[in-house]
Amino acid sequence: MSNVATSYDLVTFVTDYGTQGGYVGALHAVVDSIAGPSSLVRVIDLDHSIPPQDVLLGALRMERSMSYLRPGVHVGIVDPGVGTGRLGVAIEAGGRVFVGPDNGLLIFAADAAGGGERAVALERHLLAGRSNTFDGRDVFAPVAAHLACGVDLLELGPVVDVTSLVRIGRPAVRELGAGTFELLVVQVDGFGNVQFAAEGSLLGRLGDHARLQRSNGGSDVIALVASTFADVPVGSPVLLVDSDGCVALSVNRGRADELLGVRAGELVSCSEAARG
Amino acid sequence: MSNVATSYDLVTFVTDYGTQGGYVGALHAVVDSIAGPSSLVRVIDLDHSIPPQDVLLGALRMERSMSYLRPGVHVGIVDPGVGTGRLGVAIEAGGRVFVGPDNGLLIFAADAAGGGERAVALERHLLAGRSNTFDGRDVFAPVAAHLACGVDLLELGPVVDVTSLVRIGRPAVRELGAGTFELLVVQVDGFGNVQFAAEGSLLGRLGDHARLQRSNGGSDVIALVASTFADVPVGSPVLLVDSDGCVALSVNRGRADELLGVRAGELVSCSEAARG
Amino acid sequence: MSNVATSYDLVTFVTDYGTQGGYVGALHAVVDSIAGPSSLVRVIDLDHSIPPQDVLLGALRMERSMSYLRPGVHVGIVDPGVGTGRLGVAIEAGGRVFVGPDNGLLIFAADAAGGGERAVALERHLLAGRSNTFDGRDVFAPVAAHLACGVDLLELGPVVDVTSLVRIGRPAVRELGAGTFELLVVQVDGFGNVQFAAEGSLLGRLGDHARLQRSNGGSDVIALVASTFADVPVGSPVLLVDSDGCVALSVNRGRADELLGVRAGELVSCSEAARG
Repeated sequence: MSNVATSYDLVTFVTDYGTQGGYVGALHAVVDSIAGPSSLVRVIDLDHSIPPQDVLLGALRMERSMSYLRPGVHVGIVDPGVGTGRLGVAIEAGGRVFVGPDNGLLIFAADAAGGGERAVALERHLLAGRSNTFDGRDVFAPVAAHLACGVDLLELGPVVDVTSLVRIGRPAVRELGAGTFELLVVQVDGFGNVQFAAEGSLLGRLGDHARLQRSNGGSDVIALVASTFADVPVGSPVLLVDSDGCVALSVNRGRADELLGVRAGELVSCSEAARG
Repeated sequence: MSNVATSYDLVTFVTDYGTQGGYVGALHAVVDSIAGPSSLVRVIDLDHSIPPQDVLLGALRMERSMSYLRPGVHVGIVDPGVGTGRLGVAIEAGGRVFVGPDNGLLIFAADAAGGGERAVALERHLLAGRSNTFDGRDVFAPVAAHLACGVDLLELGPVVDVTSLVRIGRPAVRELGAGTFELLVVQVDGFGNVQFAAEGSLLGRLGDHARLQRSNGGSDVIALVASTFADVPVGSPVLLVDSDGCVALSVNRGRADELLGVRAGELVSCSEAARG
Repeated sequence: MSNVATSYDLVTFVTDYGTQGGYVGALHAVVDSIAGPSSLVRVIDLDHSIPPQDVLLGALRMERSMSYLRPGVHVGIVDPGVGTGRLGVAIEAGGRVFVGPDNGLLIFAADAAGGGERAVALERHLLAGRSNTFDGRDVFAPVAAHLACGVDLLELGPVVDVTSLVRIGRPAVRELGAGTFELLVVQVDGFGNVQFAAEGSLLGRLGDHARLQRSNGGSDVIALVASTFADVPVGSPVLLVDSDGCVALSVNRGRADELLGVRAGELVSCSEAARG
């Protein structure tokens, strides 16, 4: 059926499965059982710590990994609509294939790879006895394994118009007033670093110090605007450009999320602080 | 010594080691050091999130993985008796080998694979300088690696009668009264989904809605009996058949464990609810 | 430039990255993208659970892994000084290469491998567009991948005198009075086992029972001095030599950290207990 099957030897995963319940293990087991012994397919767990159902952070994580990830089959699974009529899709873009639910999760990464060229709905090469709640094991992992082993995209199911794929909005920095910005917290990592949905260039509009406050109430935090954690004393806050190129609040050897009192999904106001 | 050594290229792990303390890394390091460079042995972490010492959940996880896992050396380590006289064993069943403590952990999986055909006590091919508290690193991982590299089962130690292996009971649904069932919580996953030790067929006896309550006290939860998370509004509970084929309580985009107030190992009563 | 390039096929990681934020996935992605398809480079996650910025525990973990880890490129990343003038280094010792920040993290392992023979500062073969906060992705992983693929140590940057590398102290057992010792808690694992910075031989000075107390206040714990968890009844404490050869307090099927009320980095006094 395929004429020029492209083969991939790399399967990557971004999910909200966490470390509990054996879900990640099942993904690996399924890929392995399809690829078989002595296959060269490599599986990389890019991130399984996306907060449950946080499609936006999952989409951002997939997009960001494009800069250091060689082409392969890139699976994303943050899937509150599993078991409903939402499509499962595979999208070809820039020599990569993105596999997952059609809920916007894949779209930033596909765009970063050059934009979707063709897409299909996932109807074939699924696991027998598909459940209603675990398409990762039953649909996305098997499809990814088959793609990695040379199955052509078009063998997976009917073509879907790439312009019809679900798109999600990218959170924008909102200017509340002159020099005051409202920023969405998109990620809190294991160190308590608070990453905002804002390009690092925003720092140029904030001067030497920034004042931050959780929008729904909370204490003011005055942070030095600088380059790295150790630019401030131990325990002090610093606003910097993080390794994703985003504005982030950190505390040198401490937890910025606790200082600011925020979690992913919350809003924070940010403005230049008067020199103390 | 062996005449027809079967070789496996797959080693899988189910443990209660969690992510702390470097125990999982030690397993990988030991397998790798025995298999050596350019070996084709593949290691899959099926699940390291079994709650500490929860032999039953470990046994269920191993059993369930049989449906999507190709034959290999399947190591299970949930081992409260480490350092005592309990045996370490390897059990051959249906072209697979199960390795771990003889405490019932391996027995459901061995049965699912066709039943133990022969077994040995683990006395040879252990790591030098065996400790009293970490048989995963010192016994089970090295034995698994040697098996994967072609060492015959009988080289590991003396034969053990498969009928003498420790067996554990499978938790049963208890009918408390007409239409009221007592269910054991066997797993709470990272999403807060509560899995019960009950086959999905139980749902047929519950009608459209079910009433659930923690047996040791707690609020009533009335859940729709349906197929998937999104069958109920965001924040509402749903009782469904999960991807293991078990009855499970979920909350659409929320945590069922918090709603019901339960943890693994607790009992919950469940009955048909009058239509609201 | 290199004449006899030694090639390694193994890259290992010890970090404080935890499971959140996708940092570990980025390490894997970078190594894979440099090694390329069908490379035989194997990556082992030894431990990503080092508490944030705990250089000492990271150094101990790396050292301990030497006993069961075959030679390779051993990366350590616990790096509070990232983005400052601190060096990134690669140290050759005993047929191994240790890669990470020059803050003492690598030094115990290098000593265990026979002592640093030569070292270089990491200036070449870095990722383009290096960030200020993520040298794991931008410096250490790429350098490790290049070393694993045959790049010579001397191609990475200028030679650093091995005697000038930063060294950290090894915590010592302090004898407070006759038979009373002050021990540093170096690790609490996922089971709640409390590991002290003390060789197992200390147990010989404690008799049959030991009294332990958190130095900054807390209840007395009287523990049996024995060999393994099951030497005491369920729920009772036992002081033993753990799998790292260190003194550790455990509770059979329970959590010793909660019983003693301690966390890593705290001090505990320990003495022989009068027979009850």
